Amino acid sequence: MKPDYVKPLDRRHGRVELSQGAGGRAMMQLIGEVFARALGNEYLNQGDDGARLPAPGGRIVIATDAHVVSPLFFPGGDIGCLAVHGTLNDVAVMGATPLYLAASFILEEGFPLADLIRIVDSMATAAREAGVPVVTGDTKVVEAGKADGVFITTTGVGSLREDVDLSGAHARPGDGVLLSGPIGDHGMAIMSLREGLAFDAPIVSDTAALHGLVKTLLDAVPTIRCLRDPTRGGLASTLNEISRQSGVGMVIEEAAIPVRPAVAAACELLGLDPLNVACEGRLVVICPPEQEAAALAALSAHPLGREAALVGRVQADPACFVQMRTRFGGRRHVDWLSGEQLPRIC
Amino acid sequence: MKPDYVKPLDRRHGRVELSQGAGGRAMMQLIGEVFARALGNEYLNQGDDGARLPAPGGRIVIATDAHVVSPLFFPGGDIGCLAVHGTLNDVAVMGATPLYLAASFILEEGFPLADLIRIVDSMATAAREAGVPVVTGDTKVVEAGKADGVFITTTGVGSLREDVDLSGAHARPGDGVLLSGPIGDHGMAIMSLREGLAFDAPIVSDTAALHGLVKTLLDAVPTIRCLRDPTRGGLASTLNEISRQSGVGMVIEEAAIPVRPAVAAACELLGLDPLNVACEGRLVVICPPEQEAAALAALSAHPLGREAALVGRVQADPACFVQMRTRFGGRRHVDWLSGEQLPRIC
Ligand SMILES: Nc1ncnc2c1ncn2[C@@H]1O[C@H](COP(=O)(O)OP(=O)(O)OP(=O)(O)O)[C@@H](O)[C@H]1O
Ligand SMILES: Nc1ncnc2c1ncn2[C@@H]1O[C@H](COP(=O)(O)OP(=O)(O)OP(=O)(O)O)[C@@H](O)[C@H]1O
Ligand SMILES: [Mg+2]
Ligand SMILES: [Mg+2]
Ligand SMILES: [Mg+2]
Ligand SMILES: [Mg+2]
Ligand SMILES: [Mg+2]
Ligand SMILES: [Mg+2]
Repeated sequence: MKPDYVKPLDRRHGRVELSQGAGGRAMMQLIGEVFARALGNEYLNQGDDGARLPAPGGRIVIATDAHVVSPLFFPGGDIGCLAVHGTLNDVAVMGATPLYLAASFILEEGFPLADLIRIVDSMATAAREAGVPVVTGDTKVVEAGKADGVFITTTGVGSLREDVDLSGAHARPGDGVLLSGPIGDHGMAIMSLREGLAFDAPIVSDTAALHGLVKTLLDAVPTIRCLRDPTRGGLASTLNEISRQSGVGMVIEEAAIPVRPAVAAACELLGLDPLNVACEGRLVVICPPEQEAAALAALSAHPLGREAALVGRVQADPACFVQMRTRFGGRRHVDWLSGEQLPRIC
Repeated sequence: MKPDYVKPLDRRHGRVELSQGAGGRAMMQLIGEVFARALGNEYLNQGDDGARLPAPGGRIVIATDAHVVSPLFFPGGDIGCLAVHGTLNDVAVMGATPLYLAASFILEEGFPLADLIRIVDSMATAAREAGVPVVTGDTKVVEAGKADGVFITTTGVGSLREDVDLSGAHARPGDGVLLSGPIGDHGMAIMSLREGLAFDAPIVSDTAALHGLVKTLLDAVPTIRCLRDPTRGGLASTLNEISRQSGVGMVIEEAAIPVRPAVAAACELLGLDPLNVACEGRLVVICPPEQEAAALAALSAHPLGREAALVGRVQADPACFVQMRTRFGGRRHVDWLSGEQLPRIC
């Protein structure tokens, strides 16, 4: 037997072991047979302490997100593709072209290898479809009971387009507030699974990589003021963030905000406001009024923006309030998400 | 009361709450009062979905590491500074100048805010001393019992020096194997704390940022073949990795490898081999033989390399074995760390 012979992993019945995070032979095997096998590319395969990469050219953008979603698998996706999409989207909404991903895994001892493989494969597919390689990674294992299956932190690096200047601080009174599609699908896919709500058709997460949609939009309307992905805290928190960063207020129209009937029904049942529920494949766009039509047209022409809508308008307001004109003609204050109704959505 | 009034956090007695990871007002408060307050800089303060950064110029390096060390505080450091050093060192040993860090936190509900603040402050100090800002971050909270206090993933981006070409695949027969200082301090600081070993003076972690030492070395000897930080798996795994990547063997001299007496004693007590125990502030250097003296001189002249030593030599060996000439004149095979003796060291 060669001194570095190791029994192949049992991909069907095996479980993650502490030794696979300790830095020795077992870890190398897990990285090789599970991670590198699925995610491999010329950079990852260098196998050094990090990845050596070509000059990105121009300014860069870095974004990072930990993913702790529970459950790990849900209609429309899993923590693997979510970890790719979530970080790519943060890079994209900065106006950057995502180039590289780093992926760091915290595994719980005893986690089924078959599930890990499914997750890593899903990650690999999402990265391939997005055209963005995972160039470096890390693997840690903690004792059973000290984590919850798998946590994945992804970090994205992108190269910033020089023709756009996007920021949450750029909203101006009169600007239009656009949404690329219905809100709350991702959050309610998770919540209804967790709460055991049964629907004829399950609610499907909207998790998707948005950089293609962003490129289409920015090519058409480079004067966009701000893009943001309404993830945790939902549309309500996103609009409050932008209002605060820009020192403006907003008024949105309840009737104009797309919400799928099943999402509305699930929110009703669980006492949630769709405005607070996370999306993982939607774009909030703040756009100068004279470009609204062009922006809407560009969004709608893309498969991920078919249900795009103008949902409100920025207005002068030193108090930075976000308000909503309700279906019944009243007005209400749209506040940040408060409380802990929606933990571990992403 | 202003609608966005929030009670200040109780920095002494408060505890992390699930709502602080949900994306709303409570999360913004935690990020503002704990993270941005300690780590703030012009990039982080932009407050957008990621950080917008100047062109790094030339090729870049990306490295990522999750940190799950237990206990969180130990002689010589804590998870906060470790998370900065660990990732900076992976960037540095690639021959790159670390420029930016991203930091993502997974917090357990109920974790004392005072401890979190201590950790974040330590991170801020380490980042400041290293001259590398944390430019973007993320904060997730999981339920009590679903994590272990705090996990921190850091990702580093650096700009690659054009005058060096380092890789684990570049070791050649005849090259010298150098170490920048004694091995095993970090791992034994953690293990002896965990196992309740009492010494007159506790073993102190060697955690440190190595990019200054690396710069000194590479300025003096740009023809260095390979650098690596012997973290998990210790010197044994690091040398095996390089041997395998380069398709060579190595012989190291037990008598030449610096090990502090307290580390040796603790290893003896716990049945560990110092060769398997992680460092977090040491450098392994593979160097052409004619440059060994210059490399040793450069290392020794730096505060972090005062105890540097030549510990072995690369040799031709298609089996890629690492061997050690023992104090008693024998030879033994130096294998990768196997088993799970050293979990959660970093
Ligand atoms: N989950 C993963 N997916 C893809 N690649 C990985 C993964 N984990 C590790 N790698 C790759 O394997 C190699 C070794 O990683 P490792 O974490 O052991 O290196 P290191 O960071 O230098 O050591 P340490 O984490 O102990 O500080 C690196 O090239 C890394 O990019
Ligand atoms: N622990 C932290 N340390 C420093 N900055 C942080 C930390 N957590 C978040 N931030 C910063 O706060 C801002 C908001 O972060 P947040 O994670 O809410 O944004 P996001 O990634 O767009 O949303 P989500 O994580 O829901 O996808 C960002 O500018 C981010 O860099
Ligand atoms: Mg390393
Ligand atoms: Mg995000
Ligand atoms: Mg690592
Ligand atoms: Mg975002
Ligand atoms: Mg490392
Ligand atoms: Mg985030």
